[in-house]
Amino acid sequence: MANIQDLFGKPLTVVNIGLQTFAESVRAQGVEVVDVDFRPSPYDAPRLTRTRAGVDIEAANAEAVRRIASGKAVLIGLGIAREVIPGMRDKMILHAGPPITWERMCGPVRGAVIGACLYEGWARTSDEAAQLAASGALTFEPCHHHHAVGPMAGVVSPSMPVWIIENAAREASNCAFCTLNEGLGKVLRFGAFAPEVIEKLKWMATTLYPALDRAVRSIDGGVDIKNLIAQALYMGDECHNRNKAGTSLFLRAIAPALARTSEDRETIAKVVEFIDRNDHFFLNLSMPAAKALTEPAEGIQGSTIVTTMARNGTDFGIRIAGLPERWFVAPAGQVKGLYFPGFTEADANPDMGDSTITETAGFGGMAMAGAPAIVKFVGGVPQDALDATLEMYDICAAEHDTFLIPALNFRGAPLGIDVRRVVETGIAPRLNTGIAHKDPGVGQVGAGLLRAPMECFVAAFEAMRET
Amino acid sequence: MANIQDLFGKPLTVVNIGLQTFAESVRAQGVEVVDVDFRPSPYDAPRLTRTRAGVDIEAANAEAVRRIASGKAVLIGLGIAREVIPGMRDKMILHAGPPITWERMCGPVRGAVIGACLYEGWARTSDEAAQLAASGALTFEPCHHHHAVGPMAGVVSPSMPVWIIENAAREASNCAFCTLNEGLGKVLRFGAFAPEVIEKLKWMATTLYPALDRAVRSIDGGVDIKNLIAQALYMGDECHNRNKAGTSLFLRAIAPALARTSEDRETIAKVVEFIDRNDHFFLNLSMPAAKALTEPAEGIQGSTIVTTMARNGTDFGIRIAGLPERWFVAPAGQVKGLYFPGFTEADANPDMGDSTITETAGFGGMAMAGAPAIVKFVGGVPQDALDATLEMYDICAAEHDTFLIPALNFRGAPLGIDVRRVVETGIAPRLNTGIAHKDPGVGQVGAGLLRAPMECFVAAFEAMRET
Repeated sequence: MANIQDLFGKPLTVVNIGLQTFAESVRAQGVEVVDVDFRPSPYDAPRLTRTRAGVDIEAANAEAVRRIASGKAVLIGLGIAREVIPGMRDKMILHAGPPITWERMCGPVRGAVIGACLYEGWARTSDEAAQLAASGALTFEPCHHHHAVGPMAGVVSPSMPVWIIENAAREASNCAFCTLNEGLGKVLRFGAFAPEVIEKLKWMATTLYPALDRAVRSIDGGVDIKNLIAQALYMGDECHNRNKAGTSLFLRAIAPALARTSEDRETIAKVVEFIDRNDHFFLNLSMPAAKALTEPAEGIQGSTIVTTMARNGTDFGIRIAGLPERWFVAPAGQVKGLYFPGFTEADANPDMGDSTITETAGFGGMAMAGAPAIVKFVGGVPQDALDATLEMYDICAAEHDTFLIPALNFRGAPLGIDVRRVVETGIAPRLNTGIAHKDPGVGQVGAGLLRAPMECFVAAFEAMRET
Repeated sequence: MANIQDLFGKPLTVVNIGLQTFAESVRAQGVEVVDVDFRPSPYDAPRLTRTRAGVDIEAANAEAVRRIASGKAVLIGLGIAREVIPGMRDKMILHAGPPITWERMCGPVRGAVIGACLYEGWARTSDEAAQLAASGALTFEPCHHHHAVGPMAGVVSPSMPVWIIENAAREASNCAFCTLNEGLGKVLRFGAFAPEVIEKLKWMATTLYPALDRAVRSIDGGVDIKNLIAQALYMGDECHNRNKAGTSLFLRAIAPALARTSEDRETIAKVVEFIDRNDHFFLNLSMPAAKALTEPAEGIQGSTIVTTMARNGTDFGIRIAGLPERWFVAPAGQVKGLYFPGFTEADANPDMGDSTITETAGFGGMAMAGAPAIVKFVGGVPQDALDATLEMYDICAAEHDTFLIPALNFRGAPLGIDVRRVVETGIAPRLNTGIAHKDPGVGQVGAGLLRAPMECFVAAFEAMRET
């Protein structure tokens, strides 16, 4: 008792672990409190070190992140979806996120499907398109089932041009695909399908696509997109919602070839203008690069590393390296963000798009510490961006050896989300994303931040325990 | 006495002001020490608030920084030095820094003068050129006496093409001039004059210059360089020794016009390649922009704000707003930096060039906090870059309202070096710079950091007291 008297006789410094309210009541009495941000795991599970079959999970995960980090991502050309995407067929529409039926599709994905039907000439009006989509005559499949990714609605139809990104690393030989970024405003990926949306897609297919394809194919060895991502991370991009440096560097990389291979000077000017007017142009290159980099990790037995995080606007789904065919799905979350003038949270569709492949591959939200200016687009203050990256180290298996963050003294970005760590710490991956209007035909209304739903990770963890 | 016993009976926390060694001896005894980095002023002077004539210095300085911050800097075209630079005459050579004679010129400035003589056809060999330069037949004047600035040797001869940057703000109507950046390696600005150096300058005059001039003049309203600087500061540049984002953004700004106004596709490709291969290309635009922005502050009676900092490789000189015609000069310092393979500090020429106009205008070294990746080029760690900016707030009169630093929560960069504050605090402006070989004809050997010499500021302060 004497000792306790002694203790309370001196000024106290209190360390408060967890619930904020305890700290506040102590602080109210003028006592200094150090807060430790601790959340108990939502899931009381023993540490998983081996699968039932005896596979060393730590070793499997090390191999998964090694493959992702050491991969290549080279733009080798463009192609028409039906001609280059494996398994793409007539009357097939690819979409972002896990599998979904027309009945369960959210407004903006429905809007993009309607737009694709008009673009393909399968329907003359939006009503006709909606009837066609509901009739069962179309096949809907996730981009991720076809080595592809798509931002927001992520809709790809057979005659759309796509980028082709090759990963020709030692043990890999895979390609990933993505449509070209349409720009800002009313665009298909945010669910718009007005005549000007379709008209712009046609221009992209007839002018932009051939010009870029000729330019890229004339560059010996292609364009190293992984290298451009690494450079852009030194320049304030995180290459998910800030792609201004990446867009600029890509233009530098292709402009000479574009000049030499284009038919006329006006085409060069138009193509350059199209790229220059859209600071998100590079997103549709950083995304398939991430897809190309992560695919070689799929199928590593026993690995609990996430290889896919994707949302269709209704569901959020993840897949892990050790169980590459299974989706672990939960309802898509609501984004907290900044809204364009005239729109509010009430207009927002839930979280949507395959762009979370960037976080999966070790950049995007993982590298926000290097992109302080992004908070002007997604909300918060630069310290939040720094904190986001620092927190992600707790749930990742490694630090990237190529994607570095100057502001953190060139520390590698967090790489390889381990579902075990997510479940143990209760820390879900942080995402930053665009926000679509919930109704078809409107488009983007803002951008913001959220976390992946914990249920997906708990389900994946459970599945690994049972394997 | 009882009180003192009481004091030393409790655990002590010591605040040590100034000399590091005191702190270390206390710390060695296990006592917690908070260091305060304090240097006594080298100059024991009362605070100067009014000139002898009664002018309120604080108000004069506020007007100076207001003019600098509110200025414009628009690229309106290019021209040939003799045709566009006021006072430029035949057989005249402009150079960086304060006035200097051929006899006192350092090796690389002599090298650049020799190169200029060869370029102009005034001499056939380097010996002939040196004889001509020593003969008194040439006129040497500072760039700064002709509304111009030049990086490193800063040599401008009559037939060289120059950028024209206009400041058409409300109370200003001035233009600034700068040659085009030649790229890396053996280049005139670092004192090289080999045949390939002259050949490249000729290509720049005959191909690059007309193509860029046509492109720039076709753009309605010109190219807003101040705006590009502000954007580049969000993208990891500080626009003195890191200009990668600025170079990229400038290319984006002119590429469509370049495509539309060039004679053929190969010229477009060559011009774009030339820009793309040199991440410092934008330096020769950020420098004259800084010059255009700072000139309107010159001549504000009673202002102690620095309007020029410049080095000729022998002397370092400053000028202040209140005494715009007077140079305050001290020996140029030795740069601490990173050297290219094969070179050491023994090869280095002292500090050189007009590029410190960037720090004068509120970016460059002032904005290093936003450019953590620059340390890979100039040395140090990212924390040093952050500290450099934070320290500069102590000697500047204001914070810029347009040049913002995301990493400091979008705080404005330190703007307007006040010689009074420099003298009072003993903190000299920090600079980052390229390093030239001390011999003529060699070129760049590295890049690094240093401070401006305190003597210049003390002399300027003294002169203001006497005014």
